[in-house]
Amino acid sequence: MIHKSRAIILKSRPSGQFSTENLAFADKSTGPLAPDEVLVQTKFFSVDPYMRNRMNDVKSYVEPYALEQPITGDAAGLVLESRAPDFKPDEWVTGVMPWQEYTVMPGRYLHKIADRDVSPTLYLGLLGLTGLTAYFGLLDIGKPVSGETVVVSGAAGAVGSIAGQIARIKGCHTIGIAGSDEKCSYLTEKLGFSGTINYKSRPNIRKQLRGVCPAGVDVYFDNVGGEISDSVMFYLNNFARIVLCGQISLYDTNRLFTGPRLLAQMIIHRVQMQGFIVYDYRERYAEAREQLYRWLKEGKLISQETILEGFEKLPQALTGLFTGENIGKQIVKV
Amino acid sequence: MIHKSRAIILKSRPSGQFSTENLAFADKSTGPLAPDEVLVQTKFFSVDPYMRNRMNDVKSYVEPYALEQPITGDAAGLVLESRAPDFKPDEWVTGVMPWQEYTVMPGRYLHKIADRDVSPTLYLGLLGLTGLTAYFGLLDIGKPVSGETVVVSGAAGAVGSIAGQIARIKGCHTIGIAGSDEKCSYLTEKLGFSGTINYKSRPNIRKQLRGVCPAGVDVYFDNVGGEISDSVMFYLNNFARIVLCGQISLYDTNRLFTGPRLLAQMIIHRVQMQGFIVYDYRERYAEAREQLYRWLKEGKLISQETILEGFEKLPQALTGLFTGENIGKQIVKV
Repeated sequence: MIHKSRAIILKSRPSGQFSTENLAFADKSTGPLAPDEVLVQTKFFSVDPYMRNRMNDVKSYVEPYALEQPITGDAAGLVLESRAPDFKPDEWVTGVMPWQEYTVMPGRYLHKIADRDVSPTLYLGLLGLTGLTAYFGLLDIGKPVSGETVVVSGAAGAVGSIAGQIARIKGCHTIGIAGSDEKCSYLTEKLGFSGTINYKSRPNIRKQLRGVCPAGVDVYFDNVGGEISDSVMFYLNNFARIVLCGQISLYDTNRLFTGPRLLAQMIIHRVQMQGFIVYDYRERYAEAREQLYRWLKEGKLISQETILEGFEKLPQALTGLFTGENIGKQIVKV
Repeated sequence: MIHKSRAIILKSRPSGQFSTENLAFADKSTGPLAPDEVLVQTKFFSVDPYMRNRMNDVKSYVEPYALEQPITGDAAGLVLESRAPDFKPDEWVTGVMPWQEYTVMPGRYLHKIADRDVSPTLYLGLLGLTGLTAYFGLLDIGKPVSGETVVVSGAAGAVGSIAGQIARIKGCHTIGIAGSDEKCSYLTEKLGFSGTINYKSRPNIRKQLRGVCPAGVDVYFDNVGGEISDSVMFYLNNFARIVLCGQISLYDTNRLFTGPRLLAQMIIHRVQMQGFIVYDYRERYAEAREQLYRWLKEGKLISQETILEGFEKLPQALTGLFTGENIGKQIVKV
């Protein structure tokens, strides 16, 4: 069967700030299935900051998006037809899929959602790459020890909100940095953070940090980079660990931001900074997912999602990540 | 016996660039010895970049120098008198001593120079904290593997020249960045570096790096920081290690330097950056010294020293570190 499908393509590479103008809607028809192919009706799209980087024509750990082709990203959907032996109609699947309403995928690129009593959206968030990123970044690189102070930037974001909760589970004094009072209240009241800083409400975040981190900072889980990180650099304890997960404050421009050179702080305090990509932990996904699922079921982890409805909302959901409109995982439901 | 002694004291804290004007000569007399004290005639002074930082009134891993008091640093000298059971006249000792011609030290702060067939100056350089810093920084943090590319900044300096030679011993493609053609020739011709860059002779060090590191950079041993490090950031291979040993290009000022924010490179390439202080390896000094001594005796390691003669040369030897006047270890002989 042929399905007419809307798609979202990269119309132009952003020069400077990314806007929805860089994207365009297009019509893609899905043809008949070849052997081992599966027709998926996409139901949930994961909207993630790294997508912004893929719009640049720059070599990175993933290929740049091609012009005039659909954006791709994590998504979850229902199998409509299948010529792949492992998949049957009405099964939920996830995978990296184009931003299309219907898509034909080789079966080997799809993962069946295990028969669990949770929403499929969790496989894009807490039980997907988002949760895995928080898990490996915090535990493998940050190595938090009970009683230590963990600071998370972008703490109300998808990865940050999970990283902070895992730090709390591990018995750490957990401080979240976020961009609104609403987000900050959410972090302390719902997610159990020990304290927060709204970096937009007060000019001097260094002073605030001193207040909420009286014992200094042992682990800094960094999603944002830039000035927020500069401030944290001054409170690092000896043998602190910096988990370089993202630098979202610096993504959305062609300009090369400048900032103070503070690496001497890392020498004085023997700090380790480590950049990481979740894909390198592929062989341990199952272990991590199991633990995250258990924490979820025990009520220790809350999965917060911001869901916009409608395929046509995808572009604004993506720009919204950079203006701070989401709390937790940003998803678009079709 | 009382010895009249010249001393060099911190007259004023540098505001901006450090100059010999911040130091002054003073007269200190050494009094008679108390029990367990040793009178040392200082013969060789180690002149090191970290001393500049101790002139600032800033908390760090060592105390700031006190105003009107003698500068202290590593030194080697001869025992003249001793009331400490472990030391006898005419023995060579090392330790952290004031910049004085004669000094009275508690015996517990002195180390006897082992009866080896090498110059006492080696215990300030190759077999002292300098060599130990290069050894632990390169091997423990850099973890170079044969065939990898190791870039050393400040490569003609005391630590850099040893770090680069150890990288060469480990079978690495070793590139040194230094500030004159003379230094660069020395590195390739005498110390066996694979290639060099004179960062002062050409404007575009990034382009030069591409030429001498065709396979990218696996280990960056950083003594200087600043713009040189910025260039290296663009050639880091996946899973590269950055050894943060020093940031000498940023020390000699009160100004907070700024530079491009390049940490996203560390995420893309999963880079680890680690600041370190040699003191943390105290328990392994003996092991490292043994290995360095063996390499020296086998002719695999060359210890290069720049020696100025005369106590009164100490201030200019120290400022000279920041204008690039030394090759290898800077020592003042009295």
